[in-house]
Amino acid sequence: MRVLGVDPGLSRCGIGVVEGPSRRPVALRTGVVRTPSGEPTSRRLARLYAELRAVISQASPQAVAVERVFFNVNVRTAMGVGQAAGVVLLCAEQADLPVVEYTPTQVKLAVTGSGAADKAQVGFMVRSLLGLTESPRPPDAADALALALCHLQHAGAASSTAGGMSPRLAAAVAAAGPGAQVVRRSR
Amino acid sequence: MRVLGVDPGLSRCGIGVVEGPSRRPVALRTGVVRTPSGEPTSRRLARLYAELRAVISQASPQAVAVERVFFNVNVRTAMGVGQAAGVVLLCAEQADLPVVEYTPTQVKLAVTGSGAADKAQVGFMVRSLLGLTESPRPPDAADALALALCHLQHAGAASSTAGGMSPRLAAAVAAAGPGAQVVRRSR
Repeated sequence: MRVLGVDPGLSRCGIGVVEGPSRRPVALRTGVVRTPSGEPTSRRLARLYAELRAVISQASPQAVAVERVFFNVNVRTAMGVGQAAGVVLLCAEQADLPVVEYTPTQVKLAVTGSGAADKAQVGFMVRSLLGLTESPRPPDAADALALALCHLQHAGAASSTAGGMSPRLAAAVAAAGPGAQVVRRSR
Repeated sequence: MRVLGVDPGLSRCGIGVVEGPSRRPVALRTGVVRTPSGEPTSRRLARLYAELRAVISQASPQAVAVERVFFNVNVRTAMGVGQAAGVVLLCAEQADLPVVEYTPTQVKLAVTGSGAADKAQVGFMVRSLLGLTESPRPPDAADALALALCHLQHAGAASSTAGGMSPRLAAAVAAAGPGAQVVRRSR
């Protein structure tokens, strides 16, 4: 399964394409869409739209994972993030792709095992899980890859097969040795 | 000049098309785009996008006036409003139309003379300025018409001609009689 992760933003929108399965994920593409802060918001959103449509067309993902945005953060930037998120969801829908939104806590939990992990930990784990030689830069790109990894894990867990086991779960099983039982908390 | 006013929202997005000049405006179209709350956000945004593109194509406005959204209102609905606003701005840009955002206070001031006017006053003045037999319903539709009226006034004031005089200003001039001088505060 190929997943496009998107960390929405108007100044910087993180993009990451990851191919599964979840226990052996491969990064196919990572980057950031930037739009000039001096331009009108409508033009910046149109640029973002065009770039996202191009990424979807080139990378052919089967699903899109987007960060669920909250507005208790920074009111000044929240507006742009909300507008950008609207355009991201629109692009996914117009490409007929399923879209799943994940909270920052869900993403951190999925890739680091802790919902309270900081940026550096997320970057480290994304690099480690994807076997990259260095942490993806800027953090928006790492967050987008983390979103894609998070979706691979959730999609794998939903299909309830060993092939969809999360990397941490797989590591836990391996460490526990043959015959070990792993009890998953139901969500 | 023909202006499309849009009051962005995911459940109800107000639409109003008004033809100027500002002192004799005519409502050409008013209504609300609704999207089903049970559907995924991405699908609702795609519906809104399609409807807005159709309205722009049919009504051929020369400008779009959009309500500037703030996030100190209701955090639960703010997200949807922000996403919808992003789609509105995108549609305008893709149709190559100038977009101007106005705050609720600017709109109220333009149509009622008071930035603190309530919904009923706005509805009453929209009806009165446009010579309608009843107030446009629901309030989202009235707000959209008010946005278009606000833009006509601002565009008229910017062109600094008598033809661009606001209805209130024109009424003041008429009431003051011939030879009266009206001093406009510079903005």
